[in-house]
Amino acid sequence: MSRVVCFGEIMLRLAPEGYLRFAQADRFGVVYGGGEANISVSLANYGVDSAFITKLPKNEIAQAAINELRKFGVCTSKILRGGERVGIYFLEKGASQRPSKVIYDRKYSSISEVKLGEFNWDEIFADAEWFHFTGITPALSADAAAVTLEACKKAKEKGITVSCDLNYRKNLWTTEEAGKVMSGIMEYVDVCIANEEDAEKVFNIHSAGSNVDGGHLDHEGYKDVAKQLKERFNFSHVAITLRESITANDNVWGAMLYDGKDYCFSKKYDVHIVDRVGGGDSFGGGLIYSMLEKYSLQDSIEFAVAASCLKHTVEGDFNHATVAEVKALAGGDGSGRVQR
Amino acid sequence: MSRVVCFGEIMLRLAPEGYLRFAQADRFGVVYGGGEANISVSLANYGVDSAFITKLPKNEIAQAAINELRKFGVCTSKILRGGERVGIYFLEKGASQRPSKVIYDRKYSSISEVKLGEFNWDEIFADAEWFHFTGITPALSADAAAVTLEACKKAKEKGITVSCDLNYRKNLWTTEEAGKVMSGIMEYVDVCIANEEDAEKVFNIHSAGSNVDGGHLDHEGYKDVAKQLKERFNFSHVAITLRESITANDNVWGAMLYDGKDYCFSKKYDVHIVDRVGGGDSFGGGLIYSMLEKYSLQDSIEFAVAASCLKHTVEGDFNHATVAEVKALAGGDGSGRVQR
Amino acid sequence: MSRVVCFGEIMLRLAPEGYLRFAQADRFGVVYGGGEANISVSLANYGVDSAFITKLPKNEIAQAAINELRKFGVCTSKILRGGERVGIYFLEKGASQRPSKVIYDRKYSSISEVKLGEFNWDEIFADAEWFHFTGITPALSADAAAVTLEACKKAKEKGITVSCDLNYRKNLWTTEEAGKVMSGIMEYVDVCIANEEDAEKVFNIHSAGSNVDGGHLDHEGYKDVAKQLKERFNFSHVAITLRESITANDNVWGAMLYDGKDYCFSKKYDVHIVDRVGGGDSFGGGLIYSMLEKYSLQDSIEFAVAASCLKHTVEGDFNHATVAEVKALAGGDGSGRVQR
Amino acid sequence: MSRVVCFGEIMLRLAPEGYLRFAQADRFGVVYGGGEANISVSLANYGVDSAFITKLPKNEIAQAAINELRKFGVCTSKILRGGERVGIYFLEKGASQRPSKVIYDRKYSSISEVKLGEFNWDEIFADAEWFHFTGITPALSADAAAVTLEACKKAKEKGITVSCDLNYRKNLWTTEEAGKVMSGIMEYVDVCIANEEDAEKVFNIHSAGSNVDGGHLDHEGYKDVAKQLKERFNFSHVAITLRESITANDNVWGAMLYDGKDYCFSKKYDVHIVDRVGGGDSFGGGLIYSMLEKYSLQDSIEFAVAASCLKHTVEGDFNHATVAEVKALAGGDGSGRVQR
Amino acid sequence: MSRVVCFGEIMLRLAPEGYLRFAQADRFGVVYGGGEANISVSLANYGVDSAFITKLPKNEIAQAAINELRKFGVCTSKILRGGERVGIYFLEKGASQRPSKVIYDRKYSSISEVKLGEFNWDEIFADAEWFHFTGITPALSADAAAVTLEACKKAKEKGITVSCDLNYRKNLWTTEEAGKVMSGIMEYVDVCIANEEDAEKVFNIHSAGSNVDGGHLDHEGYKDVAKQLKERFNFSHVAITLRESITANDNVWGAMLYDGKDYCFSKKYDVHIVDRVGGGDSFGGGLIYSMLEKYSLQDSIEFAVAASCLKHTVEGDFNHATVAEVKALAGGDGSGRVQR
Amino acid sequence: MSRVVCFGEIMLRLAPEGYLRFAQADRFGVVYGGGEANISVSLANYGVDSAFITKLPKNEIAQAAINELRKFGVCTSKILRGGERVGIYFLEKGASQRPSKVIYDRKYSSISEVKLGEFNWDEIFADAEWFHFTGITPALSADAAAVTLEACKKAKEKGITVSCDLNYRKNLWTTEEAGKVMSGIMEYVDVCIANEEDAEKVFNIHSAGSNVDGGHLDHEGYKDVAKQLKERFNFSHVAITLRESITANDNVWGAMLYDGKDYCFSKKYDVHIVDRVGGGDSFGGGLIYSMLEKYSLQDSIEFAVAASCLKHTVEGDFNHATVAEVKALAGGDGSGRVQR
Repeated sequence: MSRVVCFGEIMLRLAPEGYLRFAQADRFGVVYGGGEANISVSLANYGVDSAFITKLPKNEIAQAAINELRKFGVCTSKILRGGERVGIYFLEKGASQRPSKVIYDRKYSSISEVKLGEFNWDEIFADAEWFHFTGITPALSADAAAVTLEACKKAKEKGITVSCDLNYRKNLWTTEEAGKVMSGIMEYVDVCIANEEDAEKVFNIHSAGSNVDGGHLDHEGYKDVAKQLKERFNFSHVAITLRESITANDNVWGAMLYDGKDYCFSKKYDVHIVDRVGGGDSFGGGLIYSMLEKYSLQDSIEFAVAASCLKHTVEGDFNHATVAEVKALAGGDGSGRVQR
Repeated sequence: MSRVVCFGEIMLRLAPEGYLRFAQADRFGVVYGGGEANISVSLANYGVDSAFITKLPKNEIAQAAINELRKFGVCTSKILRGGERVGIYFLEKGASQRPSKVIYDRKYSSISEVKLGEFNWDEIFADAEWFHFTGITPALSADAAAVTLEACKKAKEKGITVSCDLNYRKNLWTTEEAGKVMSGIMEYVDVCIANEEDAEKVFNIHSAGSNVDGGHLDHEGYKDVAKQLKERFNFSHVAITLRESITANDNVWGAMLYDGKDYCFSKKYDVHIVDRVGGGDSFGGGLIYSMLEKYSLQDSIEFAVAASCLKHTVEGDFNHATVAEVKALAGGDGSGRVQR
Repeated sequence: MSRVVCFGEIMLRLAPEGYLRFAQADRFGVVYGGGEANISVSLANYGVDSAFITKLPKNEIAQAAINELRKFGVCTSKILRGGERVGIYFLEKGASQRPSKVIYDRKYSSISEVKLGEFNWDEIFADAEWFHFTGITPALSADAAAVTLEACKKAKEKGITVSCDLNYRKNLWTTEEAGKVMSGIMEYVDVCIANEEDAEKVFNIHSAGSNVDGGHLDHEGYKDVAKQLKERFNFSHVAITLRESITANDNVWGAMLYDGKDYCFSKKYDVHIVDRVGGGDSFGGGLIYSMLEKYSLQDSIEFAVAASCLKHTVEGDFNHATVAEVKALAGGDGSGRVQR
Repeated sequence: MSRVVCFGEIMLRLAPEGYLRFAQADRFGVVYGGGEANISVSLANYGVDSAFITKLPKNEIAQAAINELRKFGVCTSKILRGGERVGIYFLEKGASQRPSKVIYDRKYSSISEVKLGEFNWDEIFADAEWFHFTGITPALSADAAAVTLEACKKAKEKGITVSCDLNYRKNLWTTEEAGKVMSGIMEYVDVCIANEEDAEKVFNIHSAGSNVDGGHLDHEGYKDVAKQLKERFNFSHVAITLRESITANDNVWGAMLYDGKDYCFSKKYDVHIVDRVGGGDSFGGGLIYSMLEKYSLQDSIEFAVAASCLKHTVEGDFNHATVAEVKALAGGDGSGRVQR
Repeated sequence: MSRVVCFGEIMLRLAPEGYLRFAQADRFGVVYGGGEANISVSLANYGVDSAFITKLPKNEIAQAAINELRKFGVCTSKILRGGERVGIYFLEKGASQRPSKVIYDRKYSSISEVKLGEFNWDEIFADAEWFHFTGITPALSADAAAVTLEACKKAKEKGITVSCDLNYRKNLWTTEEAGKVMSGIMEYVDVCIANEEDAEKVFNIHSAGSNVDGGHLDHEGYKDVAKQLKERFNFSHVAITLRESITANDNVWGAMLYDGKDYCFSKKYDVHIVDRVGGGDSFGGGLIYSMLEKYSLQDSIEFAVAASCLKHTVEGDFNHATVAEVKALAGGDGSGRVQR
Repeated sequence: MSRVVCFGEIMLRLAPEGYLRFAQADRFGVVYGGGEANISVSLANYGVDSAFITKLPKNEIAQAAINELRKFGVCTSKILRGGERVGIYFLEKGASQRPSKVIYDRKYSSISEVKLGEFNWDEIFADAEWFHFTGITPALSADAAAVTLEACKKAKEKGITVSCDLNYRKNLWTTEEAGKVMSGIMEYVDVCIANEEDAEKVFNIHSAGSNVDGGHLDHEGYKDVAKQLKERFNFSHVAITLRESITANDNVWGAMLYDGKDYCFSKKYDVHIVDRVGGGDSFGGGLIYSMLEKYSLQDSIEFAVAASCLKHTVEGDFNHATVAEVKALAGGDGSGRVQR
């Protein structure tokens, strides 16, 4: 009974409080998150029935992760239990010129060791309209890549819209590996979400005139990247997020959506960051929602970016924004005045 | 023996820590506050004998509220005990484009069910020079409005200066109700504190050229509002606060004071907000202090705005600033250099 | 076996959490720090063997201070135990226009009552290349000043480079006392670190055209101060830090290094402050490291300022930055992008 | 699709941390709970599909309560939204000879103002086998009592087993009111849970030889009470809990189950209490589970008491024990040895 | 207007959270307390107007101490401001066989450096009926001892009842010093509170048959000590507290009161300790209250011991118990049952 | 320069605060510990130069573990850096009848993947007198077992005393595997520490008349086990710990030491537990210390058990007791009276 199915890994996130460094922490904040899980929560918060698919061991840490998803109404009944580990990542929140640091300890996680055929995709996709995954899932292992492909094929077969956020992670695989595996999967994808770095690293798609590190982003360059992506893989839509990192505390955030015809750029937001992680995923959640709701191209990208802007103001990987909140911001009220 | 008497409601404030959303909180910070209570604390911190008048139930939560007032030296001996509830408000602190949210659960509070004649105003006002209330008190209930009027009349009779911060709260009453009740009370008021929205919502006083939502504020418009207020109700002074909300974290803050002759505008402060709630009240506290101390019009408004600027940097509804601290800021040192 | 020896006081620092004021705090964060101790930790974090020399009483609070130093690998084996007290300072973190406040309770501390001859400087300096202290140590007491001088002489005798951060503290001594005592010590100093205020307060060295309180800082003025310092005391190097306090949250931070020939100015950083205390010390730590490593004049000042910029983003007096982190920032990446 | 339906109020519980008294707390732990909600969570944790039925306002505090239930897999889809308030209770945890204190602020809650006909009991009971409520629900208001009766009748009509925990609350109604209302409802009840005080206060059923206050409990007395209850109302089963309060920290805990034929007494546990609230509810949850699972009379009461014993070791109103954990304890392992 | 005047030192208490050892703590709980301050709070909580007299420096830490006293309604208007330090003590809470540890850092505190004539005792004692101090105050310094004597003489002159808790502290003075100074003060004392150790250490009064360290306490021995104390100093009453330390967590607690005629022993309580510090002071507070209220000898000692029993269940130095709570326990309800 | 060398794994321990269950925790307390690391800290706290040997990855979590060891003065300079993971264990603290739960996530840790020859044992053992490891280290992997054997042989060769705590962990290996591997190592061991379960599980050594689960422990049985162990492996000493688990909060704790001639039983302690983990290791630390100090057999076992008793009162894996503290308890003062 889920309209949207998300497939990937949910990890235990362990983070020192505030801006403490790892060696200063005598406690870690505990949160659960992962690219696709974050999107399933975003959608549940928008009132969309969504399911999260993964494999988790039979222990209390895994159960706690499931409980967190259930808390928001995400369907977790198709999650497999077995294997050895819940993936973990350690997060040290940066400030000013000091960057946030992520240490991954996700190797050997249950989902990374899942095998072809373990999931009953027919059952999982029974009432689904949309399937989402990110480039992280196939990067976990060859097995995980095979299962991702299996799911994509089944989704396509059933006429389900497939979206993918490229999300290149250099510590999981090389650009060569990523390019090879992801290219094979892309033919099943309808909606592609990327940032400039992803396109370059995964598919070697370059664009002159932009400069990620310097934080200066260029409209024409983005259009060009979107166009190349669409042409190469025949996507129905390409969304590109535009982040300018001023410091670890302050980012400028916007995005562009391309449907093969029009390029719609969103407003830009000067975001004072509470928690940066999950920012991109909340964009994906907003985009899927607005496309399910058949918003116009411009309204879609505005909703997705406003959703994501709000995520940056919330602790944890999950976005807690409601449709009303996102619409209020997308509609122009970013003054932050007290709502009584 | 109190020079200043403040009358209103003190509530239990419950707020998730930091920027957590309500559903993320497994603990709430506990603070007690309310428009008039906040002012009584401001004044006590300036060394002015002040009393807070309200009605609270006979339970430990009410006692805790009283203890918090006593902590700062506010006289609480005239507070009535009885009735059913301590009013509560839940506060979720906003960040960046996400606004703070207030959920009121104050209905049926003891003070909202107080009856005419319960307070012995003669005794309460024995040594008073100043009486303060806000537009929230009469908004609590018809009974509370009647008691407010009763107090105002008694104060006037005794030659006590009366100040009122309009503080329109749309969830407590309609603009029509507010206009009707407040108009009846205004004849007893000497010093009126308002922001542009209050004047418009309560008394339908408009001013061209300004735009609250957009955050752009216009000097001429403010003068016009102050003039209209003074003319309609014959106030001795009208103070208007000028808040520009850039985001939930950053506001520009200033004010204007009008005595029927001169319009004095304060410096403006770019405030990086720690806690926005009670910001307006701290302005009132500063204004009453500077008028009691017979500061010049310009010094009065500078003191009041500097006091309020400092409040924005402190957690909780109460202002903790001392006269020395406010004067240092009003005198020009806003650099925030470490004081060793 | 320590290349660098730092001598001074380590205090127990007690600070309300977040931006709470003293009277709001029902717990204090516990940190240990002090000018020279902070530098010994900075150096240990850069992989330099460093020792911290002080005197502390025989109790568990003193032991906790020692444990904190050991945690970072600082050699504490030459610390004397005895006397009555661990010095304490209370810190209230400021925000926006509200300054941070420091209340010292360090009088009668063990180190302030140390006597000439208690330390075995020959043993302490056995393998040392560098000796560092700040103007705070001689300010503690006449005894402490005498011991500082004793150490300087011994260091000089052994051909050890001596550095001093002037660090004038008006609550410890008058400008007259400081000038007299410090002048006597300066002849043993090779590398002098100061800010404009120090030079003026301690040595009455003025420079036209600059204005500390207003936060406007002037290159020519700084050059002039450095030149005067060098000429008067024959330092090999003079470093001057340049802090513009916008608010308690936001500073502009840079520095200049002068070797009698060239004046090298660093990049400036707009720092969003997490913890301001120890900011100057982290500059000293960076400078000593880069000079030990024989960096060029420009690279030295860039390393020192980048190190210090990172310190401002970390809670507590100690800097936690590694050489790699400092180099990354000095090398130009201040975007704060997540490091995965 | 829920086998068990629980109906009642879920409240926001606010409690000072540890053993702090109300006036010492600057934060309150936030937990949601209520007699019937607690049982729905117990059952969900045992793998039984359970639904919780109540009415809650349309605000974020209510949503947070719902989220907590969903976290454990309780079905919340039939909860009505509307009305004014989430009921609140303040809890101060006692220690040694100092008793825990509960301050209720639950008047005017949405569920207390629910009206006959608002719930669609046919739909709610669609697949149910068991209906549970406590004596607190009808005590909330005359309306709530009428709706409880309505639900009982419908349940009976559908052949659903009905259980009731008498749970007399003296601050909600008098013994006379309780006796009258509860007597009218009892004819629909199959399984009655009580402690000796309940039977006496609600139905004026006394038993010689026991003494609640003194903490001495007497087997024959309990048998007599159970017998009288069964005879008066024709219950299929009567369970009586036996609590001896040594201090606020230490209780002896056991129970008896009577099926009209046999009286089965459980083992007794010396419980070192972590959180006493919800202790009785966890007994009910264990009893319903063991009866659904058709355990023997003795096994049923052992399971229920062991479940409840474990609840006393867990913070919050909810029991977190799994079937395996309860069985391990009921089976005899109460040594608390570390499970690795 | 204060019926009871207490004179002594109030200190900043710094304690690791829970059972952490000093070296494990990265925060300290902040509480203010001291023998006589604790009693003034006890009495204020019983509704008795009480004043606390001390000297504190002009800084924010001292102000926070004063605020804490005001919170409970203690009159602080006669506290002198000046001098250098707020006395500090560090407390590490023990558990099981590990004892609690106190590290004093109270030397050079403002009150220890107070001079004869600084207090206006005529004004302070204006409406007083009772004056209380402990043996700690004269132990602080020769000056403090002189001022204590000065106060006692003035109190006697005015016919005020004087009570003293011997409270021998071996780290403040030797038994010889204590004996000499205290003997000179005792002639002004009416009510003496002691434990067996105090009597022995201060006045060399021994009693065969008891054994403090072993925790075995003997009635006859206590009677003998009380008798000797009364005979030597002509006290009207002697109260002796009887503590058996089972472990740091569990004590048996009782007391005896002797009026020269009868020896009344209280009930004994098995106390499970939350915070042991201030336990003796709360006994004194209860005793003074019950004597002011003219309770019978037996009722007095029962009230005092029950009050003190409750203090052991509360964090911090202060007792929070109300008269109703103490009476309930003294009256026999120590079961700790939840009060709803 | 280390007298004692300990070899094994140090893990990141993650534990919900207080008695929270895993699914309730939104933060985990962070502590580092492991059988041998705990002993190296115990010894450092006794003033014995000790080194800890392990392999840890090159990341900040590993560095934090090292920092914790350095904090106590443990030598960490011989720790290898490399490999993939820091081992993790999750700890849920039990209460009353609810047992503590440990979830291990230590597979693939760097030390478990260490290879023969990576450690330079000659260098490591340069000045050593004692080598300690536990049965956990060889259980980590075949490689780890081989390296343990390698170390034992080298130690023997150098005439270093070797001690081993059997510490059987059923989730790491079967009893068969353990028996086989451990038997091969035992010939190099001088001092064997065990509990009855270990001897039975690892070496199939049984003793009639005792009953671990029931908590009843029998002196003759223990003697018999010790005798059999000594005879089979020719140990110089066998120590057997005797734990009776009353509940998760309360244990009875003692031990026996056998030197082939005498069986010395220690006093027994009724321990009220703060943190049970590391309890056995602290026994080992105390035993090694007392044997290094050449205490008598009886004094050795009393010191070891008193040390361990104190560990149970401290949070975290490490024991913080000093020699003075242990001696005070071993000498008879277990009353827990406040030390001022």
